Amino acid sequence: MTTVALDLLGGDGAPAVVADAIARLVGTGDGSDASGGVTPAVDLIVVGPVDVAHALLSERGVPIDAVRIVAAARGAAMAGNPLSTLRAHDDVTVSVAVGLVADGQADAWVSVGHTGAAVAAAVLGLGRVAGMSRPALAVVVPALAGSVVLVDAGAAPDATPDVLRQFALAGWAYARALGTDDPIVGLLSIGSEDGKGDRLRKSTHDLLAESLPGIGIRYAGPVEGNDVALGTRAQVVVTDGFTGNVLLKGIEGAVRWAAHRMGAAYGDPEPARRIVRETATSEFAGGMLLGVSGITVVGHGAGTPDEICACVHLAARAARMNLVDGTRSALAKVVRS
Amino acid sequence: MTTVALDLLGGDGAPAVVADAIARLVGTGDGSDASGGVTPAVDLIVVGPVDVAHALLSERGVPIDAVRIVAAARGAAMAGNPLSTLRAHDDVTVSVAVGLVADGQADAWVSVGHTGAAVAAAVLGLGRVAGMSRPALAVVVPALAGSVVLVDAGAAPDATPDVLRQFALAGWAYARALGTDDPIVGLLSIGSEDGKGDRLRKSTHDLLAESLPGIGIRYAGPVEGNDVALGTRAQVVVTDGFTGNVLLKGIEGAVRWAAHRMGAAYGDPEPARRIVRETATSEFAGGMLLGVSGITVVGHGAGTPDEICACVHLAARAARMNLVDGTRSALAKVVRS
Repeated sequence: MTTVALDLLGGDGAPAVVADAIARLVGTGDGSDASGGVTPAVDLIVVGPVDVAHALLSERGVPIDAVRIVAAARGAAMAGNPLSTLRAHDDVTVSVAVGLVADGQADAWVSVGHTGAAVAAAVLGLGRVAGMSRPALAVVVPALAGSVVLVDAGAAPDATPDVLRQFALAGWAYARALGTDDPIVGLLSIGSEDGKGDRLRKSTHDLLAESLPGIGIRYAGPVEGNDVALGTRAQVVVTDGFTGNVLLKGIEGAVRWAAHRMGAAYGDPEPARRIVRETATSEFAGGMLLGVSGITVVGHGAGTPDEICACVHLAARAARMNLVDGTRSALAKVVRS
Repeated sequence: MTTVALDLLGGDGAPAVVADAIARLVGTGDGSDASGGVTPAVDLIVVGPVDVAHALLSERGVPIDAVRIVAAARGAAMAGNPLSTLRAHDDVTVSVAVGLVADGQADAWVSVGHTGAAVAAAVLGLGRVAGMSRPALAVVVPALAGSVVLVDAGAAPDATPDVLRQFALAGWAYARALGTDDPIVGLLSIGSEDGKGDRLRKSTHDLLAESLPGIGIRYAGPVEGNDVALGTRAQVVVTDGFTGNVLLKGIEGAVRWAAHRMGAAYGDPEPARRIVRETATSEFAGGMLLGVSGITVVGHGAGTPDEICACVHLAARAARMNLVDGTRSALAKVVRS
């Protein structure tokens, strides 16, 4: 069994929406778990105020012994500096959930709350993998030609060539943990010729071209924004957190645009909407925080119960595939080389 | 009549695809002009090798007097530094087309060739509008809630806050020329709260918040990647050319992704493909180069004849709306204030 700790107080619809997700995960909720098919066994630890958790779960018919509840009085505030909240209080849900991973009671943890707070809690409570100067958020985009890991999707808005190389290694390890044998890494840029892009991309391209092939990682060179949704040129696309987040949100917006226009053109919006929903509950639902010493999944704040379920399954899958060890080995390649 | 000069040698399929577009524009080509309905009168000047132009146009049944042909022997090479090609030769199509605008024989010019060459030719031959330190490429995205001008889409990969403010003013003038009364300007960022984003965005936000409202321009603050396809928060979205190009290509890739998935879900790919085609032949087809003293439209290198026709119509429309004067007035607002 894989054990996942879940932040009851994170997300726009928390705690009710998170409780809905828990009910689905344990099989008592309204509607089936969106993951469909056989759900590998996941033990849940719900982290939040015990009385609130009890009330919400019993309302939803979740048996008292179906999940473990661990007390944490407060959520991370959406406003202000998350780091100061975490330092001032030891009963914040994200810190308590991280603590469960740190001391081995849970194999992974999930929050759909404030990304900054989740990242800060993970770095403080789990520490960084050696060689990783800052963690990155990786999102799996369900591209036409197979999945593409986009890293960083928002954790590090300003990056250097060395940081982008760390992201390349961690993203490569993540793609491998998800089942891609020999993933090709591409650098997100404009125009696929060498020498195009901004200053950061030019320096980073030189560094990646120099260092990746020597440690057995295939490097596609520069790839473009459309390659992320098409997936033909690389399975790992590396960028800074500013560009990655803009691109990811841009793809989401464009898919919603297309669903609206195409639903109207076909005279029936439902199949288009279903594709949008299915996409949101694929691996796409959760950002995997790479480079911390414990599996951390951060989902959309506006996540639906199905999306939260998808985050929990993603976390469990990464734990079973030993993502942290894989990341550690990948980062060690550069130190060794 | 509005006169548009068209680069016969620009684009992946040139000169044949450009000749196809010309045939459609003068009404002798295969298939109708994609702009549909009443096409405002446009006089065409075809810029390229005269014998090639004659042969291609007569093959397509274009009457000898339907267009004027102006001689230019060579296209701008796709490889190497475009500036050195332009300086070494005076018979490059982009330079000759620019010259026609500079001396008043044409009201606008269009190329679907090398963007860097077109930008360099325009800056050299037309000069920059006062207050604009570098030109920007603006693309009109057909968003759900109405058109959104995205600026810069790739001309200036590295930008400063002051350059982004110039882009905001020029983009605002472009949106007005296209018919939006009192366009709202947004700064592309991550998270819509103040203080999010990378270093460039934080400084730029302060500058825009300080300077735009005082000169009568509404400022929405930070907007996100999805706002470009949705269009609810701003009609002008400002960013550096690196991020803008990544986002634009990302939207294109996502729309193709959606067309593929949705076409399959509905069991009939054609309506979805039609939406992709219609989008490509909307204003979205052409990048308008803002900040040079003459109307310059740069289209996709892989443009179809319909897309090239759309670029010509866009150029003619901007000329009729006096875009250059509008840009000049907008930039002067900051100097005056």
